[in-house]
Amino acid sequence: MADDSTQSFKAVDLVVQLSPALKTKPHVVDFGTVFTDHMLTVEWSVTEGWQAPFIRPLANLSLHPACSSLHYGIQLFEGFKVYRGDDSRLRLFRPMLNMSRMANSAKRACLPAFDQTELLECIRRLVEIDQDWVPRSDSASLYIRPTFISTEPSLGVKRPGRALLYVILCQAGSYFNSEADAISLWADPKYTRAWKGGTGDCKMGGNYGCSLFAQYEAGDYGCQQVLWLYGQDHQITEAGTMNIFLHWINQDGEEELATPPLDGIILPGITRRSILELTRKWGEFKVTECYLTMSQLCSALKQQRVKEMFGSGTACMICPIGHIVYLGENLHIPCRDKHSVKLTSRLTKELTDIQHGRTPSDWTFEV
Amino acid sequence: MADDSTQSFKAVDLVVQLSPALKTKPHVVDFGTVFTDHMLTVEWSVTEGWQAPFIRPLANLSLHPACSSLHYGIQLFEGFKVYRGDDSRLRLFRPMLNMSRMANSAKRACLPAFDQTELLECIRRLVEIDQDWVPRSDSASLYIRPTFISTEPSLGVKRPGRALLYVILCQAGSYFNSEADAISLWADPKYTRAWKGGTGDCKMGGNYGCSLFAQYEAGDYGCQQVLWLYGQDHQITEAGTMNIFLHWINQDGEEELATPPLDGIILPGITRRSILELTRKWGEFKVTECYLTMSQLCSALKQQRVKEMFGSGTACMICPIGHIVYLGENLHIPCRDKHSVKLTSRLTKELTDIQHGRTPSDWTFEV
Repeated sequence: MADDSTQSFKAVDLVVQLSPALKTKPHVVDFGTVFTDHMLTVEWSVTEGWQAPFIRPLANLSLHPACSSLHYGIQLFEGFKVYRGDDSRLRLFRPMLNMSRMANSAKRACLPAFDQTELLECIRRLVEIDQDWVPRSDSASLYIRPTFISTEPSLGVKRPGRALLYVILCQAGSYFNSEADAISLWADPKYTRAWKGGTGDCKMGGNYGCSLFAQYEAGDYGCQQVLWLYGQDHQITEAGTMNIFLHWINQDGEEELATPPLDGIILPGITRRSILELTRKWGEFKVTECYLTMSQLCSALKQQRVKEMFGSGTACMICPIGHIVYLGENLHIPCRDKHSVKLTSRLTKELTDIQHGRTPSDWTFEV
Repeated sequence: MADDSTQSFKAVDLVVQLSPALKTKPHVVDFGTVFTDHMLTVEWSVTEGWQAPFIRPLANLSLHPACSSLHYGIQLFEGFKVYRGDDSRLRLFRPMLNMSRMANSAKRACLPAFDQTELLECIRRLVEIDQDWVPRSDSASLYIRPTFISTEPSLGVKRPGRALLYVILCQAGSYFNSEADAISLWADPKYTRAWKGGTGDCKMGGNYGCSLFAQYEAGDYGCQQVLWLYGQDHQITEAGTMNIFLHWINQDGEEELATPPLDGIILPGITRRSILELTRKWGEFKVTECYLTMSQLCSALKQQRVKEMFGSGTACMICPIGHIVYLGENLHIPCRDKHSVKLTSRLTKELTDIQHGRTPSDWTFEV
């Protein structure tokens, strides 16, 4: 098995077959519905190792019906964006963090290893070819979706002997329909997103499919997303497919930005990490990775110690939380007082400025 | 959404397109590697509802690369077998239990409802067409794999607007390479198969893909499968992809056959249920669904109260357990004393006799 990165595919071997006819580019549409002209595919088998990477016209995949990605969820993905700056240059945001998280997910899914730098270079070439699809907008971008699936065509529950790594690109406007408004969350201990000893810290498909049912039940309570709880003490873990942050005055009277620690059930989000690093650099308040329970949140709300709460993720970037339905109660989450700029607005601006090249940063990677 | 079974597809609408050239049938091979000539497919979309079911030559599926079964594990399956009796008739074993479990999984995965009887009739027709593939053997059979996947071609994490239900058939010899021998299990609390509030009681793909890594670590300890534990008290839950049974003298000195209860983290196995019903009918010992912890098992082993332990499932039927590696200890699991027939042998015989029509039973369904 090619678990040594020296056996990885190489970008220098890329074969490029351009599409004979390019699609008309629509105005920015719903997230993830319109794809660009090309895709990257790289095939692997246990006998042949990695094949040469291939950029070719976007097309359907031809998969054996016994393919173990369709039966046993042997699949994983990544998500990041390419932004067009005011200078018209294209930038990725900390893409090596996605590459390394993808490598971790691959290990957990028993899919083969690859050289992360080679994959990034192949993706850079793909983006370069489809660069006209990157919107000229601060609120829109081109979303990059690397996907890695087993193509093993047999039914035993076992390590795949064949796999396909592919990358597709799609337009991304704002992820939620009403981005400006704060979202509502439904918190009920009866559903659990992830658990210790599972795969909650990897971007494996099974983490998402099992969340849908609860998401629609959230709708029955008038909420847009689920606030995922964990354990007897109802720890706050994630919101929908986002990491979660609480900006508050903690029990010790300190101003603090807190988010749950990476203990195996939390996705190590790149926006999460960037928010922690940015706010620690500011040095204006305490920044902590710690367990947060619903009872701590409820007390803080009663004592008016909560300033703001928000979700973070690549798709939505930063998403303010407006209220939480919990055990029959509708908890109103305040925004920061009107005399100062909200933390969510400030973070959104700082990150957007980096992503669009207005603030020079070694977090950007030019295409 | 077609969540009313009156809107299901109907077997009477079946369209059959036979393969122009039939494959040579090999001698029985590894489980799940050789498929028959035909497959059943039924397409669904939110706008058109269910299409007519279609039996056609086995072929690759053509799937959009954004298909949410490949990204978010929106997928589920079932597994059951068709047996050829000494009378040459073909029988399914309690297939409506598979249909109803499949409907439950579909609900949990936010995939559309269907009429269970109609699906079974479509499957019966498929088996009838490929009937020459059913082996003439007590140890081999034809395995039926209904699969239900989202074919939604967009990236938002949402209820699929399109889906495909399909059924493939493959030869099934014995599932484990050395069926006669008892298998070895590795029990380590660091991995968890399923958890309360998750999907452990459904046959969704994500339950399986996340188990592979632990399965290979089991191999490092010289074991064939994982014994999945749960919670602080190391409850015994499942073994590999099997339900688990302990035949012992319990703490109260009673002879008992025990298996963990269906509390949401246990797959409601049809072999499991059949074993419970059979042994309750015998009335020879206590039959209990109850929590079993590793410390209870260890005590019982020390006090020589364990008679036998085995896994049950459609693929393996009944699989004796020979030893368990737990916290650095190698626990030897005894077989029943030599003066009586082992429970595993007796159950295997009773079930095989029903499946092959030697014992008349309303558990069988003739094709």
